[in-house]
Amino acid sequence: MKVPKAITQAVKMEKHFVIAVHVSPDGDALGSALALSMALESIGKKTIVYSRDIIPVFYRFLPGHERITARLGTMTGDDPLLLLLDCNDPARAALEKNTFGKSIVIDHHNTGSHFGDMKWINPKAAATGLMIYYLIRSLGIAFDEDIATNLYAAISVDTGTFRYSNTSPELLLASAELIQAGANPGQIAKDLYETWAKNRFALLVMSLNTLEIKNNIAITYVTRNMLNKTQTKLEDTEHFSNFPRMIAEVKISLFLKEKSRGMWKVSLRSKGDVDVSRIAEQFGGGGHKNAAGCWMKGTLSSVKKEAINVASLII
Amino acid sequence: MKVPKAITQAVKMEKHFVIAVHVSPDGDALGSALALSMALESIGKKTIVYSRDIIPVFYRFLPGHERITARLGTMTGDDPLLLLLDCNDPARAALEKNTFGKSIVIDHHNTGSHFGDMKWINPKAAATGLMIYYLIRSLGIAFDEDIATNLYAAISVDTGTFRYSNTSPELLLASAELIQAGANPGQIAKDLYETWAKNRFALLVMSLNTLEIKNNIAITYVTRNMLNKTQTKLEDTEHFSNFPRMIAEVKISLFLKEKSRGMWKVSLRSKGDVDVSRIAEQFGGGGHKNAAGCWMKGTLSSVKKEAINVASLII
Repeated sequence: MKVPKAITQAVKMEKHFVIAVHVSPDGDALGSALALSMALESIGKKTIVYSRDIIPVFYRFLPGHERITARLGTMTGDDPLLLLLDCNDPARAALEKNTFGKSIVIDHHNTGSHFGDMKWINPKAAATGLMIYYLIRSLGIAFDEDIATNLYAAISVDTGTFRYSNTSPELLLASAELIQAGANPGQIAKDLYETWAKNRFALLVMSLNTLEIKNNIAITYVTRNMLNKTQTKLEDTEHFSNFPRMIAEVKISLFLKEKSRGMWKVSLRSKGDVDVSRIAEQFGGGGHKNAAGCWMKGTLSSVKKEAINVASLII
Repeated sequence: MKVPKAITQAVKMEKHFVIAVHVSPDGDALGSALALSMALESIGKKTIVYSRDIIPVFYRFLPGHERITARLGTMTGDDPLLLLLDCNDPARAALEKNTFGKSIVIDHHNTGSHFGDMKWINPKAAATGLMIYYLIRSLGIAFDEDIATNLYAAISVDTGTFRYSNTSPELLLASAELIQAGANPGQIAKDLYETWAKNRFALLVMSLNTLEIKNNIAITYVTRNMLNKTQTKLEDTEHFSNFPRMIAEVKISLFLKEKSRGMWKVSLRSKGDVDVSRIAEQFGGGGHKNAAGCWMKGTLSSVKKEAINVASLII
């Protein structure tokens, strides 16, 4: 993977950076942003890592997560360079009302957005973390343990720790180098997969109890009532959509979560060649072939019915 | 990792091989044996892959699994070389009554066994599959897609697909080469983790509904009645004991399954330094530090109480 020279050059020249991630940030966005922030600060640059939303508890093992802030503060006075990571439109990072001197977009999601003075969009990259790995290398900055841990975690999240079809020799070679630089694969997997709060696990089991399967489509959901009962939050449902994929006959897994009365966030997961981003796009959402998301309006039963109907068309 | 020269030499010289795996063979044993058989046959040698037990359904995606046999047949007349894989005593492969011209043991389990004219025991190897990867390389044999798939699967099983602490740069580099040779990481992960029957998944959810946590000990169970309701069998509960490990506070996971009225098979799993083999031994069972098993007698509630009491003593 080659980093556009103009981007390496622009980052080298600049002193002040706002590194921003999308709302509801996931491990790839957070690990990428933290690694890049640490790398840039190690060569004397100033950075702010901006996230509108707070960091989910289960990502607080990422080294340096406490540097993430929802306030741009005085930095904007220094006319910083915006580095927009893991998304490609400032609105996705809740930054549409801010102005920056220059902006660089680094993302592995397909886009129709025109934002960004410079862009590096690579939908073939398994994770934004892999792109940041190459950017840091192209800047000639050494990976220390914290940088390596953040990048290894970012890559792990977006590849299911090397279980998805985006796992490539290139990815494994980069990951091998990150282990050599200090990333601890056993500990990172434990931090990612064995640190669930008890009530989050209870919510998972509750959602699995709602499982229905029709035409190779699995559907599960979480309601406000279930969140209240288990004292959990919407962000605790991360990864829930993946569990029904364990079932052989399931080709699409739809997971509905009730954001507010009648408003549902839908996570779509699929196996192999089934492209759920097409479903998400129909409802104004987006994502990748095997993992996408969108919003739907209606009652639980109307949304379930509609989602299954639309999904049935692409199987 | 270096292959002992004497072993490479002995394999090169010999023409007939019995490649044997332990009873209740797992993916590491099976993938290793199949890869080695295919590699040796590709250079004109004759092999039998011997397993006393039939191959579990969920490992029947391994290329060439149909060549595995429980009959040694006429091969023994040719005075074959025994290659004992992933175990180190012929009794573990149910071969203690057979005699062989020569024998080579290749294993990554520690041993007190004296068996084997030649031995290559490497407890630091994450998987026997990694040792076979090096052996095939030392023989100068190219990895084809089937060999690569078997070795990649073997390595995946014994490292939780790169999630256990035995994951190393060396392992990732070997795996990268296996992908280049044709192993399909997404498909192998799918074959390993996403081929559950619907009723097996229903049984899992049912058992997770029984979860209780006391003193960092999780306890779940499956009764005969639950098996009947879901039309499943006791062996469908494989891996169920691992799910409660997802919860941060859980240090020990106890899983009870009712073999017959009042007779319970207990699976014990633990994290880190908690040694559950000590609990299993108290009830006449055994195993490893983090994974052990035993039998207990009594009613569900008496067995639950007793198991939790004994487990509480070692936390």
